[in-house]
Amino acid sequence: MSYRAPLHDLAFLMAHVADLPKIAATDRFAEATPDTAQAILSEAARLCEDVLAPLQRRGDTDPARLENGRVRCPEGFGEGYRAIAEGGWIGIAADPDHGGMGLPMTLATAVNEMMSSACLALQLNPLMTQGQIEALEHHASDELKSWALPKLVSGEWSGTMNLTEPQAGSDVGALTTRAEPREDGTYAVTGQKIYITWGDNDFSGNVCHLVLARLPDAPAGTRGISLFLVPKILPGEPEMGGGTPGAANAVQVLSLEEKTGLHGSPTCVMDYAGATGWLVGEPHGGMAAMFTMMNNARLGVGVQGIGVAEAAFQQALAYARDRKQGRASGTGTIVEHADVRRMLAGMRAEVQGARAIALMCAAAIDMKTATGDPAWAARAAFLTPIAKAHGTEVGMSVAQEGVQVHGGMGYIEETGAAQFVRDVRVTAIYEGTNGIQAMDLVGRKLADGGEAAFRLLDEIQQAAESARAGHPALAGPVWHAAEELREGTEWLLAQEDVTDRLAGAMAYLRAFARVLGAHAHLACAVAEAGEAGASGTRAALAAVYVDRLLPQHAACLTEMRAGAAGLFALSPDDLAA
Amino acid sequence: MSYRAPLHDLAFLMAHVADLPKIAATDRFAEATPDTAQAILSEAARLCEDVLAPLQRRGDTDPARLENGRVRCPEGFGEGYRAIAEGGWIGIAADPDHGGMGLPMTLATAVNEMMSSACLALQLNPLMTQGQIEALEHHASDELKSWALPKLVSGEWSGTMNLTEPQAGSDVGALTTRAEPREDGTYAVTGQKIYITWGDNDFSGNVCHLVLARLPDAPAGTRGISLFLVPKILPGEPEMGGGTPGAANAVQVLSLEEKTGLHGSPTCVMDYAGATGWLVGEPHGGMAAMFTMMNNARLGVGVQGIGVAEAAFQQALAYARDRKQGRASGTGTIVEHADVRRMLAGMRAEVQGARAIALMCAAAIDMKTATGDPAWAARAAFLTPIAKAHGTEVGMSVAQEGVQVHGGMGYIEETGAAQFVRDVRVTAIYEGTNGIQAMDLVGRKLADGGEAAFRLLDEIQQAAESARAGHPALAGPVWHAAEELREGTEWLLAQEDVTDRLAGAMAYLRAFARVLGAHAHLACAVAEAGEAGASGTRAALAAVYVDRLLPQHAACLTEMRAGAAGLFALSPDDLAA
Repeated sequence: MSYRAPLHDLAFLMAHVADLPKIAATDRFAEATPDTAQAILSEAARLCEDVLAPLQRRGDTDPARLENGRVRCPEGFGEGYRAIAEGGWIGIAADPDHGGMGLPMTLATAVNEMMSSACLALQLNPLMTQGQIEALEHHASDELKSWALPKLVSGEWSGTMNLTEPQAGSDVGALTTRAEPREDGTYAVTGQKIYITWGDNDFSGNVCHLVLARLPDAPAGTRGISLFLVPKILPGEPEMGGGTPGAANAVQVLSLEEKTGLHGSPTCVMDYAGATGWLVGEPHGGMAAMFTMMNNARLGVGVQGIGVAEAAFQQALAYARDRKQGRASGTGTIVEHADVRRMLAGMRAEVQGARAIALMCAAAIDMKTATGDPAWAARAAFLTPIAKAHGTEVGMSVAQEGVQVHGGMGYIEETGAAQFVRDVRVTAIYEGTNGIQAMDLVGRKLADGGEAAFRLLDEIQQAAESARAGHPALAGPVWHAAEELREGTEWLLAQEDVTDRLAGAMAYLRAFARVLGAHAHLACAVAEAGEAGASGTRAALAAVYVDRLLPQHAACLTEMRAGAAGLFALSPDDLAA
Repeated sequence: MSYRAPLHDLAFLMAHVADLPKIAATDRFAEATPDTAQAILSEAARLCEDVLAPLQRRGDTDPARLENGRVRCPEGFGEGYRAIAEGGWIGIAADPDHGGMGLPMTLATAVNEMMSSACLALQLNPLMTQGQIEALEHHASDELKSWALPKLVSGEWSGTMNLTEPQAGSDVGALTTRAEPREDGTYAVTGQKIYITWGDNDFSGNVCHLVLARLPDAPAGTRGISLFLVPKILPGEPEMGGGTPGAANAVQVLSLEEKTGLHGSPTCVMDYAGATGWLVGEPHGGMAAMFTMMNNARLGVGVQGIGVAEAAFQQALAYARDRKQGRASGTGTIVEHADVRRMLAGMRAEVQGARAIALMCAAAIDMKTATGDPAWAARAAFLTPIAKAHGTEVGMSVAQEGVQVHGGMGYIEETGAAQFVRDVRVTAIYEGTNGIQAMDLVGRKLADGGEAAFRLLDEIQQAAESARAGHPALAGPVWHAAEELREGTEWLLAQEDVTDRLAGAMAYLRAFARVLGAHAHLACAVAEAGEAGASGTRAALAAVYVDRLLPQHAACLTEMRAGAAGLFALSPDDLAA
């Protein structure tokens, strides 16, 4: 069981689907040339293969634990973290002014995928820090940036997000943690937060918590939420004020959750007892800052799903190529059985499709950053919930298929196949459940009257038209599916009752993901055909996707059109009867 | 978290889909009147709700372990087992001549579902014994029956199946365990078996292993396999011979597997070192005997999936009705959110569809038993792989959806939602992986030229025709889907290359399950309409299935027709590149 970074696939998608050359043609990302990208990815691959992947099983069998109020992490996680930090990977997309590499999100996304494949439990730590860096870059005062960002970017400090409270999960607006202003300009933050990923560790010099809380005069709901930076240890920079330098802040880990997976990652119940915090952004402007953080984190979580799917696929393929059973032709291993081949080819096609969607989303974020063009911003916003929900659904389904390929061995923990299933499960839940993503898609992301959606569908259909001559069996179904999706989008927009939209939201998201995935596979087949000595494997993989996975989009659209009435015809009592 | 047996649904399906009255009209099952069925199910429900369900979590947190070569089971499992045995539930379908109740498999299936919902890890024990009883009833000598069956039926002894060896999993024919005849008519069995479910326990008086092994003169492959009964303790009945009565046989548990779920159920590596065994059936006739055992076990495993799905659904619904979050209307709980309602209604519809398929399969087995009609035998044989694979896929998907309904709480082990996912996962693997079921369906079960399939489709379409006037929105899609499935079946039968059949096998099985499920829901809607004061909830549930789940059948059929060439266009090296 050894992970090999999918450098070819990543490079191919960046060249032909995410269009890294276009990103590198902007002033902002002029350094992201193909050569630089290649060098960056190769370096990250070495880290993931050699340093992080060996930690994967230990993160499961040697869980993080709470000892005398301090979190103790699995053996080796500290060394792994330092290797990530020293390689500069935490700040890969961060502003060079604060020590970051300033590279595009597209490259960061590829690196995050590889780290997720290698050791998801550990990767989750820098992913949280990256989100915090992003939020501070956009919303913090210059002063706060100057003392916090360099340490976060370098990995000397790690970061967390504190949203959830027992009564405030998906409904963030219900939170009650409060922040009282002090005379020195800091705030006293008091409350309990739950599900705090990497709320503490034993390897970073400090842990910075971004905490959503209410000021004394705050209005109810999400409009009364402010954001605060609350470090575990008071850093004591002269300009900071607020407490004795190096002293412990009034922040405590009360307990760790016993989760079904990600045992290496401590999920904390945090207590803030008048802890010193610094306001980030405007008073009552916490949701805006949090959304900056969450949007990128959502893409990052989608990528976690893809990373786990890739790792699960690799392990299943290696097992199938090694396992002799039955009267298989050729090598005599189960990889020659049609049903096993179906699973493996489907897994590979699925991973590549989801990866392409994530990279398209990252590329849109980069183009938005580089050009400020609202069309790119709309594209990024539209693709984010799809990348998150689809990436994590692919993570779950491919990990499950990986267990199935292993047969009885898949049920034995020693193989690690089941760990992928357990670890990846939460990705469909955190950073906004996939249902929340779907609601976001049919709500906020279609609030432009469908402009972003239709623009995307136009591009997909134009590409299919161009490809029709060379790849009729692929381009025809893609064009047709996009047309049905266009009609489906129009249907959604025409629904006057928002409940009908919401009842079809997940089905619509799934249908859109299928079309995007097929579009990306088609683009790969077209690009491959333009290369000398092309083997045709990308076209073959595209055919697996188009023939076997794309047809699900029609079932999704039919489900979407079913509307809400049928669901609400059954009352909760009816369901329980 | 308390399980309530779905007595209404079970009774309704038995009355209107599985046609228990027809079964009770046969001489063989004359005792299975509606009143008896009702009494039996109510009694079993009490056992499951009051005695078994409280053991469910403990089976996960207090795993079975091996101590000095003896298996120690979770606290309370012994009491639970005795309650099952004393209620007569192990022998519910066994021959009254050996102490069984002689009731139809249809009723046994309903009881097994309830026990699976309540505590899958423990239920697995009597399920294994039931399979052994079935195999002995059909294949053992009268002498062997006379001393073994009464003790198995009463639960004084429990039973296991020993097929798998490290090199012989799905390919049973590769096994190497050997059996040497002794002068006293017994055999010395030597070899190692793996994945032996409930290979030992600390509550039954003996454990009887049915072991597949080779006689010295055995031909290679499955034609050289014989079946032996090998008890852990030599029973020493005067007529038996073979060792000192009450002495330990040369059978040993070497180790337990560390599994991802079903921690309460010990999965053993068994060693037989010249252990005393008795031949069951003919020399080299072990596969036939094993298939008797496995066919019913396959239905039983499908029912395990359904049982877990029902329990996961109930828990998710209870959670959703209790959990306040967001601006939900009505009760203010998340059950009012359209996407949560979608999940819950879909789960309920899915469970009911899979349950109906399992009961249809059980009813066909009963009618075969009662009438000997080869058409019923063919129906039972055709439905068995569908009931197994679909029931377990529903188990997995509904359990996963249950976690999703719980949001972040679903990832915390304490809620038990994740345990359902972990426990049910193996049901898609054991007793023949679902891929093996699909191969069986398109291979052996279509070897009649499709006669059994087409007869089923005829009935489905006739029923849809009859229902068209009263339920046009349900009957139309069901008829149409059956027609497409008929064409799909013809396509499969026309494939000359068996690999094309196999590459589409799983998709075909899934399409068939969708049509069967929709057919059953339609039958429920029709039956409900015939009742006085009908609420319409069964029609509403049928609409959820037909509108939201049935459309997947078309995607499956499209996938099925993709054939094998596209899969094999990608070599293992291509997949790994």
